[in-house]
Amino acid sequence: MATINSMDDLFVETLKDIYYAEKQIAKTLPGMARKAHSEELKQAFEKHVQATEDQIERIEKIFTMLDLTPRGRKCEAIEGIIREAKGQSREIGNANVLDADMIGFAQAVEHYEICRYGTLTEWAKSLGLNEAAELLSKSLTEEKDEDVLLTKIARSSANPRAAA
Amino acid sequence: MATINSMDDLFVETLKDIYYAEKQIAKTLPGMARKAHSEELKQAFEKHVQATEDQIERIEKIFTMLDLTPRGRKCEAIEGIIREAKGQSREIGNANVLDADMIGFAQAVEHYEICRYGTLTEWAKSLGLNEAAELLSKSLTEEKDEDVLLTKIARSSANPRAAA
Repeated sequence: MATINSMDDLFVETLKDIYYAEKQIAKTLPGMARKAHSEELKQAFEKHVQATEDQIERIEKIFTMLDLTPRGRKCEAIEGIIREAKGQSREIGNANVLDADMIGFAQAVEHYEICRYGTLTEWAKSLGLNEAAELLSKSLTEEKDEDVLLTKIARSSANPRAAA
Repeated sequence: MATINSMDDLFVETLKDIYYAEKQIAKTLPGMARKAHSEELKQAFEKHVQATEDQIERIEKIFTMLDLTPRGRKCEAIEGIIREAKGQSREIGNANVLDADMIGFAQAVEHYEICRYGTLTEWAKSLGLNEAAELLSKSLTEEKDEDVLLTKIARSSANPRAAA
C-alpha cells in the first residue's frame, strides 16, 4: 500500500528512520566505550554519547516544527550494522585488534549517519524547510568530524599497535 | 570462541565481509535500474553494475595474493540496508519520490563501501600489503565518485522534480 506519496512524506519517514537509528546508537556507545582498550578511543566514544543526545534533540525539534510527535521507524540498516559489530567482537581475542575492529564499525555507523543527514539536509532545502536544514547540517558536520577523529585515532594508535 | 587474534585475521574477515556485500549489491542493482524513472539515474545504476563486477574481481585478486580461496562472510549491515530499501520502496506511490528514495538508499550502500574500503586500505598499508592497498584504494575512489554522481543527479533532477 502506498503511504509515501510526496517528498514531505519521504522526509518525515526518513526523519523517523534516523531518529530510531540515533536512539540505537545512544544505547550501544556506552558498551563500546567500556570495551575500548585505548584511552583515546574510550574517551572518543564517551564524548560521542553526548553528541548523539544533542542530535536526538535536534531531530525532536524538527518533529515539533512540523507539528508532529517524535516517533521512530525501525531502521534495519543500523540494526544490521550493530548486530554484525556485536557478533564479530565476540570472535576477537586481542584487545588491540578489538579496538581496530570497533573503530571500523563505528565508522560504518558514522557513514550511515553522514549519508542520511546529507540526504535529509538536501531534501529539507528543496522543501523550503530552512531551519530544519540548518539543524540537520549541524549534525552532519558533527558526524563528519567524528569520522575524521576515528581515522586519526586508528592511524596514530590502534592500527600500528594492533599490527605490531 | 576467539578466532580473530591478529590484524591479519581481521583483514581477511573484513575482506570476506565486503566480498559478500559486493555480491549482494551486484544482485540488487539491476532491479534498481529497472525501477528508476529518470533516465540519468537508470544509466547511473546500470553503469555501476560493471563497476561492482570490477570491484569483486579486485577482491578475488587480493584473496589469491594471500593464497586464499575467495569466500564471503554474511554481512548483516548490507543486508539490513537492502532489506530496508526494498521494504520502503513498496510504500512509495510516486515515481519521482521513488527516484529520490532510491538515490538515498544507494548512497547508504556507497557509504558502507566507502568506510569498508577506507578501513581495509589503511589496514593493508599497516600490514605492508601494498599491492592490496592499491587495489582497495582504487575501489574506494570509484565508490566516492559514484556517491558524488548520485548527489549531482539528486540535486539536478530527482529532488526538484519530486518536490514539485
